[in-house]
Amino acid sequence: MEIRRSEKSGIDITSIERQDLPLEAENNVAGVAGLAMLEAYNPQLGFEIRIVKNIKPGSGIGSSAASAAGTVAGMNYLLGNPFSTKELIPFAMEGERLACGSAHADNVAPALLGGFTLVRDTNPLDICALPTPLELVATVIHPKIEVKTADARAVLKKRVTLEKAISQWGNVGALVSSLYEEDYDLLSRSLVDGIVEPARSILIPYFSELKVACEAAGALGSGISGSGPSVFALSRGMSTASKVAQAMQSVFEKTTIPFDIHISPIKKTGVSFIEDLR
Amino acid sequence: MEIRRSEKSGIDITSIERQDLPLEAENNVAGVAGLAMLEAYNPQLGFEIRIVKNIKPGSGIGSSAASAAGTVAGMNYLLGNPFSTKELIPFAMEGERLACGSAHADNVAPALLGGFTLVRDTNPLDICALPTPLELVATVIHPKIEVKTADARAVLKKRVTLEKAISQWGNVGALVSSLYEEDYDLLSRSLVDGIVEPARSILIPYFSELKVACEAAGALGSGISGSGPSVFALSRGMSTASKVAQAMQSVFEKTTIPFDIHISPIKKTGVSFIEDLR
Repeated sequence: MEIRRSEKSGIDITSIERQDLPLEAENNVAGVAGLAMLEAYNPQLGFEIRIVKNIKPGSGIGSSAASAAGTVAGMNYLLGNPFSTKELIPFAMEGERLACGSAHADNVAPALLGGFTLVRDTNPLDICALPTPLELVATVIHPKIEVKTADARAVLKKRVTLEKAISQWGNVGALVSSLYEEDYDLLSRSLVDGIVEPARSILIPYFSELKVACEAAGALGSGISGSGPSVFALSRGMSTASKVAQAMQSVFEKTTIPFDIHISPIKKTGVSFIEDLR
Repeated sequence: MEIRRSEKSGIDITSIERQDLPLEAENNVAGVAGLAMLEAYNPQLGFEIRIVKNIKPGSGIGSSAASAAGTVAGMNYLLGNPFSTKELIPFAMEGERLACGSAHADNVAPALLGGFTLVRDTNPLDICALPTPLELVATVIHPKIEVKTADARAVLKKRVTLEKAISQWGNVGALVSSLYEEDYDLLSRSLVDGIVEPARSILIPYFSELKVACEAAGALGSGISGSGPSVFALSRGMSTASKVAQAMQSVFEKTTIPFDIHISPIKKTGVSFIEDLR
């Protein structure tokens, strides 16, 4: 993203490359996040934003969060950082409200803070930055199909059994502990979602084949990225993560579904500043 | 507890002081835990156990776990520690099976390991020892009324809303993080039970008055100890914990219900060995 101060007040999205997204600030997640920040800081000010969007919206890997987080981080930088990084989260959450109807912090918090984050509560906002085990690498496959947010929500049951909820509390607590302890075995045992995954995975073609293939290739665990259709796996070390990528590829190249695969260590810092153009 | 090797095989409970509990090993949590350990190690061996029981059974502060954990830790010591502390947990869990019908590790794991423990799973057993913030002190009030286990279970709903479950996952994860970070404010915000407490607290007289009084006295948080009727509060420092004890006392001295109050820092080690009598 290229962000510049502008003489004109408000947010002016000058161009969006590689994806077909609305230019009007009120209809664009970057625009909405920027406007929320201006509203809190000084509505008289203005910014120009040029977006080169490499992530396809609706992938489940935080496309909207990336735009919202990048916008507010860039604007904050150009204003001399009047807000702390944590204070930027609520502005970026307004972008999520536009994107999916709910001002959640699940993606914008890690996009801004980096690493793993835990959203204890959104009202009031209470975010914990968690440590990132050094050797952890993510492999993500994005099958290029559309999973409608409405469908991803509709398949979830409104109630869960107390037994399953208790089991999942155990997994959540142990997962947090594993990040602090850098205990990859515990992380692997805890990376289990017995609640949302069984319901939502029916919307993702070849999900169980992917899970089996990732495990066979040595992944610590895998799951649905966001509300899908992307599927992530976590591995210890780049070499295993690459094998996991090959395993994912071999599942999907037998199908007619186009796909992208990404491999990345967990980024410990959030939004990066590439260049100061002033 | 006094535990001695015996010529006679099996577990011989020679006396129980201060509480009225069965002496037959098969009907006593200490006996059952000890027998489970002998079964795994060598059923020909024998131990004598004398129990001086200062905790009233059914208090919700882990009376049965104390007996079970003490027995297996003492026997293991006398045998030259053939088992690791974690390996002792399943034996002590058999005592819990006798006490409440379910071989759970919620109390025996911390009784053996000390500090905070998280039970990720019981089948197979997966226990995480968590760090203990240094200044944390517990205040516990034990109203001397009986809460029947059957009632404590019956009031729980079999299902919880996904919304509440998600909120509680946030609290569990944040609570674990707060222990690692020694973040008392986060611990305070996370020490919330929106699932079991609202249901079970109806069985505990003056529960909401206690909670309000603990908070007013400066406690970080409070809740039901085990399945009740005891209520615990956690505070930062002994001085606040003492004020919380006074606050608890002032709630209950207006009633006709007899009660005990205990104040203790969180013990970082489990079962202690007081003296080697050999």
